[in-house]
Amino acid sequence: MPNGLDEQSMEETGGDHREISVAEFFEKNKHLLGFENAQKSIITVVKEAVDNSLDACEEDEILPEIQVLIDEYDDKKCRVEIRDNAIGLDRETIPKVFGKLLYGSKFHKLQQSRGQQGIGISASAMYAQLTTGEPVTVYSKQEGEPCHKFVVRIDTEKNEPEIIEDEVIDSDSDEFPGDQDYYFDHGTTIEMQIEAKYTKGHHSIRNYLKHTAIMNPYARVVLREPDGNKIEYPRVSKELPEKPKEIKPHLHGVELGVVLRMVDNSDARTVSSFLQNEFTRVGRTSAENICEEAEIDEGRRPNTLSKDEVEQLLKAAENVKLQSPPTDCLSPIGEDLVLKGLKKELNPEFSTAITRKPTVYKGNPFQVEVGIAYGGDIEDEGSYEELRYANKVPLLYKKSACVTTKAIEEVSWNRYNVSQTGNRPQGPVYILVHIASVWVPFTSEGKEAIANYDPIRKEMKLALQEAGRKLGRYIGRKERKEIQEKKKRKLTSYAKEMAPAIAELAEEGDVDDLENRIQKMVEADYNPEQL
Amino acid sequence: MPNGLDEQSMEETGGDHREISVAEFFEKNKHLLGFENAQKSIITVVKEAVDNSLDACEEDEILPEIQVLIDEYDDKKCRVEIRDNAIGLDRETIPKVFGKLLYGSKFHKLQQSRGQQGIGISASAMYAQLTTGEPVTVYSKQEGEPCHKFVVRIDTEKNEPEIIEDEVIDSDSDEFPGDQDYYFDHGTTIEMQIEAKYTKGHHSIRNYLKHTAIMNPYARVVLREPDGNKIEYPRVSKELPEKPKEIKPHLHGVELGVVLRMVDNSDARTVSSFLQNEFTRVGRTSAENICEEAEIDEGRRPNTLSKDEVEQLLKAAENVKLQSPPTDCLSPIGEDLVLKGLKKELNPEFSTAITRKPTVYKGNPFQVEVGIAYGGDIEDEGSYEELRYANKVPLLYKKSACVTTKAIEEVSWNRYNVSQTGNRPQGPVYILVHIASVWVPFTSEGKEAIANYDPIRKEMKLALQEAGRKLGRYIGRKERKEIQEKKKRKLTSYAKEMAPAIAELAEEGDVDDLENRIQKMVEADYNPEQL
Repeated sequence: MPNGLDEQSMEETGGDHREISVAEFFEKNKHLLGFENAQKSIITVVKEAVDNSLDACEEDEILPEIQVLIDEYDDKKCRVEIRDNAIGLDRETIPKVFGKLLYGSKFHKLQQSRGQQGIGISASAMYAQLTTGEPVTVYSKQEGEPCHKFVVRIDTEKNEPEIIEDEVIDSDSDEFPGDQDYYFDHGTTIEMQIEAKYTKGHHSIRNYLKHTAIMNPYARVVLREPDGNKIEYPRVSKELPEKPKEIKPHLHGVELGVVLRMVDNSDARTVSSFLQNEFTRVGRTSAENICEEAEIDEGRRPNTLSKDEVEQLLKAAENVKLQSPPTDCLSPIGEDLVLKGLKKELNPEFSTAITRKPTVYKGNPFQVEVGIAYGGDIEDEGSYEELRYANKVPLLYKKSACVTTKAIEEVSWNRYNVSQTGNRPQGPVYILVHIASVWVPFTSEGKEAIANYDPIRKEMKLALQEAGRKLGRYIGRKERKEIQEKKKRKLTSYAKEMAPAIAELAEEGDVDDLENRIQKMVEADYNPEQL
Repeated sequence: MPNGLDEQSMEETGGDHREISVAEFFEKNKHLLGFENAQKSIITVVKEAVDNSLDACEEDEILPEIQVLIDEYDDKKCRVEIRDNAIGLDRETIPKVFGKLLYGSKFHKLQQSRGQQGIGISASAMYAQLTTGEPVTVYSKQEGEPCHKFVVRIDTEKNEPEIIEDEVIDSDSDEFPGDQDYYFDHGTTIEMQIEAKYTKGHHSIRNYLKHTAIMNPYARVVLREPDGNKIEYPRVSKELPEKPKEIKPHLHGVELGVVLRMVDNSDARTVSSFLQNEFTRVGRTSAENICEEAEIDEGRRPNTLSKDEVEQLLKAAENVKLQSPPTDCLSPIGEDLVLKGLKKELNPEFSTAITRKPTVYKGNPFQVEVGIAYGGDIEDEGSYEELRYANKVPLLYKKSACVTTKAIEEVSWNRYNVSQTGNRPQGPVYILVHIASVWVPFTSEGKEAIANYDPIRKEMKLALQEAGRKLGRYIGRKERKEIQEKKKRKLTSYAKEMAPAIAELAEEGDVDDLENRIQKMVEADYNPEQL
């Protein structure tokens, strides 16, 4: 032992220090990922799988077909099967995607997607293993290729997959699970057994899928509940949203430590080309201006830059005007699809949608969409209902901690003919708020609420006010119309009593006076006795 | 390539799947760890370092001496130095403790400690590196040993430490940083440079240290602020709380997946000895009963058990009565120290403390302590002030999401002569709530709020009611006394006017009547004109 440390003091001082695998960490902290209890956990598992399926379909521009099949067995256990028609996963990737936490294709990209962490689906598999001891089974088929079946466990202490089965099966045969109705020529099917409680209330798979259907009206989703009941969320649009593009980071939102790493890893020959190649919106002139402002020779090799020089470059960049990052990395669904989604699932008498222009927060582009649905089949249950989305994924929990709720509560709904209790709008109204971003600042790994950042809340408020004004005009017109209708109805109902009186007056030939009298009668709420 | 996949389709389908290091993950998600902004980040850094120092001192039964030295430099940057008198870290451990996330000695133990994740201090070092590009410097000295100096970076992409300097220095010389006042013969000193904003309001290092001082009255902490101002939080007790012991998991709170792993790793020869050795509160008889109930031969080797058999064992254990886990794994500070802490930092006119008996949640022992301080130097600022603690660590953020606040709001403070606005007590009152547990269910890695679990909230409510009754009696007595005092004061103030009237009456010799009249006068609130 160096420095005279003996076994004894090793033991006392640092001998029990150990590495903690990220799988062990999240197994013990599973509540951070949405696995607090049996009721919530099954929603989390379905959500992670469906989110991945939708991402995969959109990535390959396939109209999504998703089946969610739930069976109960034993006491408090469910078998969950989720099947999609995406192009399937390649053989090499499958074990790690399902058997290793922090593994994925989305984390390192600046591009809008539902998943962003590489945790969700492998954590679901870990939860299955933890609660029922059962590994995850994955079937994945690419078009014209054989179907691969994998059975995978997670070695929690190492955070590495353990392959239990790896075989090619005939997807036309009985080996392929579930109803043949659900057969697709390409796609992925996942089977997990988990401790679960299947419920039908506000926090339920039904509600999660209903919310998903509203925001993804180009998807067809079928749910088979444990009692065999099938619910279809139909496709109402064959139009996929524009596929988002990957972008590079923007100099105005990047941290020094990250740039230092980029400098180390760069194979650019000059500082100028480093700036142009690694960042968005830096052209030759901007690069030159930054170097000049920083007093650094633009022709130097990036890896000769000291820390202080890199810091100078970043400071200089703050003083050089750069265009905002491009926003084709975003994929909002647009006002038309928001309206279609609201109409098909809620059947309201009035609906409106606003898609704001993209804007930027700390170098990250984001975009807000808002929809309001009012009346019709929507029942008045006192408080409004909220539909919260981040990158098209519904958020069902932690409403009061979410920036969407704070934005809604900042709007003066009274002005828009909507009554309020405290800050909350009341009545038969659904308010939808969607943020599309390359990086949504969730308040936890469970992705349940969005942090209350000023620029995001402000955008949401502006969108809500715009939509609110439209709702206000509609309710105003409706209320005026209702008053007129009421008048008409009353007039009609008094017709019988009024008829003789009017006839009498008419006989007297006092027609001018008659008109006046009828007007008075109408103003006096049609009390014929006042005639 | 297997199955006819060529490079092209690899690229399209899974070629960009990558491992994400836990350091990269938390660098991008640093808000989850308390690094949302420059103001909060410096508090987080100090908190993580001070928590570690206190844990280390208590582990080795040393009365803690901690120095927190803050200097501002450049624009929005601080140099933070934290020094303790614990026994120091051994050489081998230092680089990983500061240069690798998810590394530590506390995660795998069931024992109360401030740290529990192995993330806090290395994440602070990562934040320093990200925002200023500077590595962390650590000096650590064990008694009678040389002082080791390490300068360590984190290789974020690998989550591994990179040692930049590793040398032995003379701790008596100028090489050792800071004032010689702060020299200890053993201990650890950490230096970091971070992007920071030093503030003095509610969310500040001052307030964090004040709260820490209340709950750790056996520690002496000195803060040197950037302007050179020194604040001392003195030690008022030389009595360390009982050192917590490590316990084994309890069969009634353990998950199937964890037991399957334990079975795999166990070198016990029989199921019976496996149950007795690996779990708390399982003796020979309990082990036999469990095996009998599960219909499993107690003499079998554990690693011959199938998953279903392990599940049977766990189910059987639910039906066998087992003692609750031992509670010497907990280290509450006790009613006396809670009182000392409240008195020294708040100087109230009344204070009370309650330490509840330990209880168990999902196999995890926990214990609640509550304190109330009222009046005296505490100003009435409308609403009450809350002092929230988990394992002696103050919680400054996310109050409204915390179980402590929910428990306080469930108590009817009106009953205890404390006015309320809504559910919140009002007036010059501090309410302290502390949970000591081997595993505190925080709502995020940042450890800012405790999840609202029923058994925890109920214990807190009971303790608050008990303390509330004492406060209520005090306020009741005080109010009665005040009424009497008021009467006395009035009587005295009227003495001059009353004197001649009384004299006159006395001269008349009507003494019996006089007594009656004075009594009437007093009852009539001393209006001498009524005589």
